[in-house]
Amino acid sequence: MSVRAQSRSSSFMSTKGTPSPLEFSTLPQTVLKAEYAVRGEVPMRADALKKKLLAGEKLPFDSIIACNIGNPYAVGKKMIKFPRQVLACVEDPDLLEVPSIPEEARERAREILKNFPAGMGSYTHSQGLEFVRQHIAEFIKRRDGGVPCDPDKIFMTTGASSVVSAVLKMLISDPSVGILTPFPTYPLYTAEITLNNGRIVPYYLKESAQWAMDVEELEDAYSNAQKEGINVKAIVIINPGNPTGSVMTAQQMRQVVDFCEQNNILIIADEVYQYNIYNPERPFISFKKIIAEMKSSVQLISMNSISKGFMGECGHRAGYMELFHIPDEVKAQFYKLASIGLCPNTVGQIIMDIMCAPPTSSECSKVWEEQKNRELQNLKEKSQTLYNCINSLPGLKCQPADGAMYLFPSVNLPIKALEEAKNLRIKGKTPAPDMFWCLQLLEQTGIVVVPGSGFGQVPGTNHFRTTFLPEAEKMDAVIDRLTKFQTEFMNKYG
Amino acid sequence: MSVRAQSRSSSFMSTKGTPSPLEFSTLPQTVLKAEYAVRGEVPMRADALKKKLLAGEKLPFDSIIACNIGNPYAVGKKMIKFPRQVLACVEDPDLLEVPSIPEEARERAREILKNFPAGMGSYTHSQGLEFVRQHIAEFIKRRDGGVPCDPDKIFMTTGASSVVSAVLKMLISDPSVGILTPFPTYPLYTAEITLNNGRIVPYYLKESAQWAMDVEELEDAYSNAQKEGINVKAIVIINPGNPTGSVMTAQQMRQVVDFCEQNNILIIADEVYQYNIYNPERPFISFKKIIAEMKSSVQLISMNSISKGFMGECGHRAGYMELFHIPDEVKAQFYKLASIGLCPNTVGQIIMDIMCAPPTSSECSKVWEEQKNRELQNLKEKSQTLYNCINSLPGLKCQPADGAMYLFPSVNLPIKALEEAKNLRIKGKTPAPDMFWCLQLLEQTGIVVVPGSGFGQVPGTNHFRTTFLPEAEKMDAVIDRLTKFQTEFMNKYG
Repeated sequence: MSVRAQSRSSSFMSTKGTPSPLEFSTLPQTVLKAEYAVRGEVPMRADALKKKLLAGEKLPFDSIIACNIGNPYAVGKKMIKFPRQVLACVEDPDLLEVPSIPEEARERAREILKNFPAGMGSYTHSQGLEFVRQHIAEFIKRRDGGVPCDPDKIFMTTGASSVVSAVLKMLISDPSVGILTPFPTYPLYTAEITLNNGRIVPYYLKESAQWAMDVEELEDAYSNAQKEGINVKAIVIINPGNPTGSVMTAQQMRQVVDFCEQNNILIIADEVYQYNIYNPERPFISFKKIIAEMKSSVQLISMNSISKGFMGECGHRAGYMELFHIPDEVKAQFYKLASIGLCPNTVGQIIMDIMCAPPTSSECSKVWEEQKNRELQNLKEKSQTLYNCINSLPGLKCQPADGAMYLFPSVNLPIKALEEAKNLRIKGKTPAPDMFWCLQLLEQTGIVVVPGSGFGQVPGTNHFRTTFLPEAEKMDAVIDRLTKFQTEFMNKYG
Repeated sequence: MSVRAQSRSSSFMSTKGTPSPLEFSTLPQTVLKAEYAVRGEVPMRADALKKKLLAGEKLPFDSIIACNIGNPYAVGKKMIKFPRQVLACVEDPDLLEVPSIPEEARERAREILKNFPAGMGSYTHSQGLEFVRQHIAEFIKRRDGGVPCDPDKIFMTTGASSVVSAVLKMLISDPSVGILTPFPTYPLYTAEITLNNGRIVPYYLKESAQWAMDVEELEDAYSNAQKEGINVKAIVIINPGNPTGSVMTAQQMRQVVDFCEQNNILIIADEVYQYNIYNPERPFISFKKIIAEMKSSVQLISMNSISKGFMGECGHRAGYMELFHIPDEVKAQFYKLASIGLCPNTVGQIIMDIMCAPPTSSECSKVWEEQKNRELQNLKEKSQTLYNCINSLPGLKCQPADGAMYLFPSVNLPIKALEEAKNLRIKGKTPAPDMFWCLQLLEQTGIVVVPGSGFGQVPGTNHFRTTFLPEAEKMDAVIDRLTKFQTEFMNKYG
């Protein structure tokens, strides 16, 4: 009897023979259909292998290297100290007198506690602490060359994931609502659209043009959706791109705004990688700046996070969204939703505060700038190293990353590999061919990457997403292991 | 023109004359219908008054006292030090060498960093760190007199609010699904049932019997719902009660389990106030223990939080749920939902770890026990002080609190007050009469409480919920101001 059959026929069946309230057969279709590959089959298998390694079992590798997720601290990131020093003092104000903590960090902590006398154990305003939103607004205004920013239009959240969930909940008023979604996409979007019972309307990014946004493709996707009776309300744009690493030009962005203006479409701008820019010819420009410059009235919800950029403070969970051209009555409903969840966590709010208003004393700001620049320079170099490696290997081809934290190489799978993939079964189903490749990579090298099929891709193509986050030693291991694996793979199947 | 009309006819209308993607008229009915009184009209008015005070405006009071929300640090709670000391060290490991931090806190931090080498900036397992869940499981097993607890069935979350949201998402597979909900209830439940497009099936707690659960009432509510074609899948039980302060007896709990067994109903046990027990004759007993002792197969999802009890660490946002008698296939779907949101914040996880596995060295455990006992003893005394005050006032009547953090007094509104309330308008609507009373209280005293109508109450009755959290000086002010207010109110209207 399979595991599945066992648990279905288990003692959880009620006495009446009807299914129990929570059984597989009683779950909502929206939940069952939602997929999230970043923590899907491959990472789950990786967890199992990690346990084997810990138990002393002998495997073809001595460590798991997680390239499946943008989680820098898990792969050796160096700590940026200032926010941690401030946090220590606000958590335990006795430390305000400890001289080994830099004076500016202690002073900043004093200021925070003055503005937030109830302290870290207290709930905050549901949109986040006012002084933090003030700092965010000043940061956004500086970034956008003076375009005004109102702290009252900012909602802090438990990371950008919560933003996406709230925004889609508001947009998807009935099952005919569609959301234009880049393919490949970050699968949070497809998962949340499905959970909210909306329609995913894919638009494909152009791999051969370094994953550029193609407005003709957008128009096609839109008019096809309309023909199917889909009410397209919004477009998701991830810039810099996840998983593609592409960065949009001002001209591309203006085209998108024109398209949205014409078709009454709201822009969901996922700008969490705005600091992760590696090509000086492709600077980050925010959608807010473009919309403001064009004097367009297109509605925009843009987001940012402490988890990416140079901070990489994923575990502390904080993000924000800014509402632009959204009526106050709708804002009031966002507020209501936020208040049902009470508030985002205080620690993440403080880290966001420091990200947006970094230290200024000579003692701390120099260290801050050094740590920030080193982190971003490292990321740039590692992206190039991995890009070069991948493009040197048979069967793999990769576009360079101008931004973000990922490469999304294509895998040219030989016929023999495709045939073998067809025979693989995971939970009774044939997985996508790129899952086959990713699982082989994992089993033989310990490297965890995510199959492209989890992100959306042109049918018939195969890809994987890998971060370029691992620190020096681990990155060397990735390169060695990947090179050996792919060479052998192509020898075996090619 | 009203604010509402203004924002509807604003420039956000698209060029085509059709509504913009996010406008009041395009929002989902589920969002519009959801209500959450704890941060509703009264607290919003309180925010406005607070700003006036800060701006130096003269009001009939010199401070706002927030009794609307279980947020102890906002009203003077004393810090429980040990978790904060550990947090400081895990955030900034340089502090591991600072001798003014107690040795056990530093040792605990070292242990945490050994088990979690990536550190606080890293995402964790989507269910929460394994060693934390291990400590939670040990705590639950101790609490339940040895009933086994599997860490794998525990999901850490961003507070109990997230548990409720996830559980209802899983249960409400279509709009015919109903959830038995206590009236009065914590309005998170009614809000989340509405957001998930399910049906609220109220069962009334018996005020005259100290808000006891009445199984006949439950059976009535259930059979009436069935007649209406509602598919009742689950019952919410808040024990100790919010807002009622009642604590269930083992016998009452066994009756509920029998009822659920007979009718194939899952129990959602909100047990976040399990430490907040003030009557030694009414100890807290978990539903898990009762179900296990009865050898019942009733499905149970129970929850706990760091925000309540003696910790009151609301701002750090952490809770957990335990799945009991839930099939693995359903658990896998909970895991998928959790993984879409990546993971709960690390800081909250560490505080939960310490709550479940407190310090043991003579240096730290003595302080811990003292702080814990003083906090709980204070709460007990304050509950009695406020209870006595309220029952001494004309027009108010209150049941004692055996547990939790709230009193839910009834307000007997004189005819003249009801007539005046009828003429009040908030956003164009006549508010419930108890809103009238709460707003008068706020405007004249600065005390913030929540109208009973936000919690559900027997039609024709009026109540308010107040915490008894304010520390000594503030509690004195509450008593003085409330006494003066209610005396004058009854003189004016009575």
